[in-house]
Amino acid sequence: MTAINDPPVALSIAGSDSGAGAGIQADIKTMAALGVFATTAVTAVTAQNTTSVREVHYVPTDMVDAQIDAVLDDLSVVSVKTGMLGTPAVVESVGRRAAEGGLPQLVVDPVMVASSGRIFLTPEGVEAYRTHLLPEALIATPNLWEASLLAGGTPSESDDVDSMIEMARRIHGLGPTWVLVKGGHLPGVESHDPGAAPVQVADVLFDGREVTVLTGAHVDTSNTHGTGCSLSSAIAAYLAHGADVTTAVTAAKEFVHGALLGGAEWHLGGGHGPLNHLGWKGEPPAGIRTRF
Amino acid sequence: MTAINDPPVALSIAGSDSGAGAGIQADIKTMAALGVFATTAVTAVTAQNTTSVREVHYVPTDMVDAQIDAVLDDLSVVSVKTGMLGTPAVVESVGRRAAEGGLPQLVVDPVMVASSGRIFLTPEGVEAYRTHLLPEALIATPNLWEASLLAGGTPSESDDVDSMIEMARRIHGLGPTWVLVKGGHLPGVESHDPGAAPVQVADVLFDGREVTVLTGAHVDTSNTHGTGCSLSSAIAAYLAHGADVTTAVTAAKEFVHGALLGGAEWHLGGGHGPLNHLGWKGEPPAGIRTRF
Repeated sequence: MTAINDPPVALSIAGSDSGAGAGIQADIKTMAALGVFATTAVTAVTAQNTTSVREVHYVPTDMVDAQIDAVLDDLSVVSVKTGMLGTPAVVESVGRRAAEGGLPQLVVDPVMVASSGRIFLTPEGVEAYRTHLLPEALIATPNLWEASLLAGGTPSESDDVDSMIEMARRIHGLGPTWVLVKGGHLPGVESHDPGAAPVQVADVLFDGREVTVLTGAHVDTSNTHGTGCSLSSAIAAYLAHGADVTTAVTAAKEFVHGALLGGAEWHLGGGHGPLNHLGWKGEPPAGIRTRF
Repeated sequence: MTAINDPPVALSIAGSDSGAGAGIQADIKTMAALGVFATTAVTAVTAQNTTSVREVHYVPTDMVDAQIDAVLDDLSVVSVKTGMLGTPAVVESVGRRAAEGGLPQLVVDPVMVASSGRIFLTPEGVEAYRTHLLPEALIATPNLWEASLLAGGTPSESDDVDSMIEMARRIHGLGPTWVLVKGGHLPGVESHDPGAAPVQVADVLFDGREVTVLTGAHVDTSNTHGTGCSLSSAIAAYLAHGADVTTAVTAAKEFVHGALLGGAEWHLGGGHGPLNHLGWKGEPPAGIRTRF
């Protein structure tokens, strides 16, 4: 619990999305909605909208470092998330900072590809994640495609929960304390509770000992741009409030579900529209204050 | 009034503030708090915090253009604000876009200096504002210092309301439809209503015919970082909702007052802390819906 007038501070190290559905724009809105003051280190400026990523301008590594320094030197950052880092040099640099102990409660969302299909990272970038950044993560949150690459396999559309668990184990072997492999719309995932609603989303959470399969109802909307960014920043936000990892992940999934519902019907752009972060109507876990 | 599920869309063309008190970070939070979906074109990435601006990385002009294109080609932008543009080339380029009719309801906040004292613009930049951008503005919102430069005078600490009115007239002569000269903490400004609370803030609004002096109570806080950015984006947000300029300016000032009050007591950083945008507790003008 923080003092009544001081929200916890988190840092997002990520790209800028001009269409504001993803990137630091999604992170700022997510964290604000969850009562956390979001600071930023911009790694890349993208020209994108709901239909495509048109251009990417990478911010020099020393300028990314300067932003991180400016924030850490002045504000009491209690959790950090990384999103699109863009270049192997930035991945390595952020990993080095983390190894020095400067990036508390590090959530690594290993962004390698946009929902539009545009690839953001070279094979050297993937290797930099494996070698330098994942070992420092409190939790890594790859989607299926990213998990395949990080686990050393080949991306596949036919992955099931068993293969997600196997990928989580292999990624955990690289060093993060926790791994969340996000399943997206996995076919064939069913709830074991016969009374439950049809389950269409399943994520695998692993801490090196216990596997937890987190299931939830699918939201029927094409407004999904920025879902991954929002989930990882919501996890960082709840960690900033002092939640443990399991609580943070569970609550973050509920937040994203609510933000998807809140924007399910709106019309913003001709492609995959954004979530409605401030449209989340849920309640945070007990003891966490999301209004300030 | 917009459709119930479709918030109006605005565009902020501005710099990024890693400390997230000002720049696009303030714009995103301001607009989100006011029920507007904020898109962005990042002109510069700054490494700054509540105490100083340490480094600035300028985004290439063609990349700024690409971001504006990506947004305008896909989303129905109904108002635009400019903040820190950084280079004369960007000022000129944005002015050209506006002259072509591509930037509706343009709010020009001619950012030339940070509250920390760091100067962001060369004399060529000031001239670019005068020649290329101000003529396209629906409203320009300089502070005293910026107004002096744009009006062709010398910045002075001793400006009073009469000199603000004179500057507003001269800036209006450059072409903007409206001018708002922000007074900050002007000494010697008193309300003509003997029953009113002590007035310590006065702004001058001018449309070429009528001068309106807008007064308001000063908020006693050092957490003022991003006040100017927040005001101009709040004006753009209310314009996006369909408000006329006078209503938008008046309501935006109330919003900023509320956001200052909401963050007056918090402790974020060792210098001038940010406003609490989501801590605004006010009500928008009739007919405007700020929750979505």
